[in-house]
Amino acid sequence: MGSASSEIVTAAVLVIGDEILSGRTKDRNIGYIADCLTALGIDLKEVRIVPDEARAIVEAVNALRARYDYLFTTGGIGPTHDDITAECVAQAFGVPLELHPEAVEILRERLARTGGELNEARMRMARVPRGATLVANKVSGAPGFWIGNVIVMAGIPAVMQAMLDEVAPRLKTGTRLVSVTIRADAKEGDVGTALGEIAKANPGVLIGSYPFFDEKQGPNTNIVVRARDPQKLAEVKAAVETMLARVKAGREGSP
Amino acid sequence: MGSASSEIVTAAVLVIGDEILSGRTKDRNIGYIADCLTALGIDLKEVRIVPDEARAIVEAVNALRARYDYLFTTGGIGPTHDDITAECVAQAFGVPLELHPEAVEILRERLARTGGELNEARMRMARVPRGATLVANKVSGAPGFWIGNVIVMAGIPAVMQAMLDEVAPRLKTGTRLVSVTIRADAKEGDVGTALGEIAKANPGVLIGSYPFFDEKQGPNTNIVVRARDPQKLAEVKAAVETMLARVKAGREGSP
Repeated sequence: MGSASSEIVTAAVLVIGDEILSGRTKDRNIGYIADCLTALGIDLKEVRIVPDEARAIVEAVNALRARYDYLFTTGGIGPTHDDITAECVAQAFGVPLELHPEAVEILRERLARTGGELNEARMRMARVPRGATLVANKVSGAPGFWIGNVIVMAGIPAVMQAMLDEVAPRLKTGTRLVSVTIRADAKEGDVGTALGEIAKANPGVLIGSYPFFDEKQGPNTNIVVRARDPQKLAEVKAAVETMLARVKAGREGSP
Repeated sequence: MGSASSEIVTAAVLVIGDEILSGRTKDRNIGYIADCLTALGIDLKEVRIVPDEARAIVEAVNALRARYDYLFTTGGIGPTHDDITAECVAQAFGVPLELHPEAVEILRERLARTGGELNEARMRMARVPRGATLVANKVSGAPGFWIGNVIVMAGIPAVMQAMLDEVAPRLKTGTRLVSVTIRADAKEGDVGTALGEIAKANPGVLIGSYPFFDEKQGPNTNIVVRARDPQKLAEVKAAVETMLARVKAGREGSP
C-alpha cells in the first residue's frame, strides 16, 4: 500500500525453566526482550515457557526457529544437571555438543580471578552445539551462544540483558512500528463499535483498545494505534480523534 | 514407586494479546496463575503468548487443550474489535458462537446500575461458544466461560484473579508437589557435579539449582527439591545436606 517497502522481521522467545512454571521465580525477561525488540524494529510474535525437559525444549526450539526469523531462549545454561538447554539446542539442530576452546578459556581466566575450580560441572558451561558462535557475558563470564537463527541466553535478568546488548547490533531489523496512544476519555464499550469500523477500514494498521481505571474519572480507555508508515499512522490517529469527538458530543447531547 | 498412588493433573496457560508481545503491557497473570495452580496441586507445564490473530489463537488453543488436562486463557474478551478470543475458541471447538441469555442479563443489569448502553460492542461480551458455561466476574460483570477443558478469563489482573477464584473449587487436582529450599552456601559450580549425581539417583524427584547473589557472602545457590511423596522429599533433602557438608569440609580442608 505505502510507497516505501517495509520489511518485517519476526522473533519468538522461549523461556526454559521449571521455576517459572511452578511460580517460584517470576519471569522478568519477557517484557524486557519485548521492549528491546520493539525498539529495534523486530516483531515479537510468540513466547513459550517450557520446563527443564528435553523433549519439550527440543520440540519448542524446532517449532519456533522454523516459524520466525529469530528465536531467543533464556535459561538452562548454568553448571547443574537441570541446565540442559545447550544439549537440547544441539539435538534440535542435529549437531554434536562440543567443548568450545574460547569458552573454556573464558571460564579458566575468570576462575583464576575469582578462585574457583574448573571442574566437571563448570565445564558444562563451555559446551556449545557445533557451529555455534559465543555470545559474551560481561556480567559473570560464562557465555551464551548463537547458532543459525537461535540465540541462547542466560535466565538471570542482568546476564540476559548483557547478552542481548551483545547481539542487538548484529540483528537484522525491519521497519519499526511507530505507535501513538490516544486517551479516549470514554468507556471501552462506548467506543468499541466505531473503533471496529476504523480498524476494518485500515487493515494494515494495528489498533488496540486497553481499558483502565482512572481514580478520578472512573473507567477509561487507551487506544493504541501502530503502523509502519508514519503517514498512515497520522491518518488513523485523526480518524480515531474525530470518532471520539463524535462519541463525546453524542454523550453530552443525551440526557 | 511410592505406596500412595499420586495422580498428576496438568495445565497450560495461553496469554492472548498484542500489548504483551509489544512490551507495552507487562504480563502479571502468568506468575499469579502458576502460584495458584501449584498450591492447588495442578502442574503448569507450558505457557504460550500469542498476538490478537485468529490463526495463532486457534492453533494454540487446539495444541494446548489436546495436550494438558486444563487450558487457561487470559485476554481478548472485551468489547472491541481486537477481542477475538471467544470466536477463536468457538472455532477451535468447531461450534457456533452464540449470545448467552444469562450473560446478556448480567450485562443489562450492570449497565442499569452504571449507566451505559447495551450496544453492539458490549453485546460482544455476551457471546460464548455453544456448550460453554459462564465464569462469574465479581469485579466488572462481563463473564468469562468454560468449555471442555478450556477456561477463558479476562486479561485485566483483578478480573482474571476473580475468575480463577470462581473456578478453582471446581478443578480436578492432583497430589501436590511438596518442596523444600536448601541454601547451599556454596557457588553453583562447586555443587553441580554432586547434585547431578543425587538427581540421577532419584528420578522421581525434581531438583532445581538457582544461583543468587548475597550482598555479604557473594555468589550463593538455592537448591529446590520437589516431590509428591513427603518421605521421598525428606530423603533427598538429607542427601543434599550431606553432600553440602562434604563440599564445605573439602573447601575448608583445602588451602
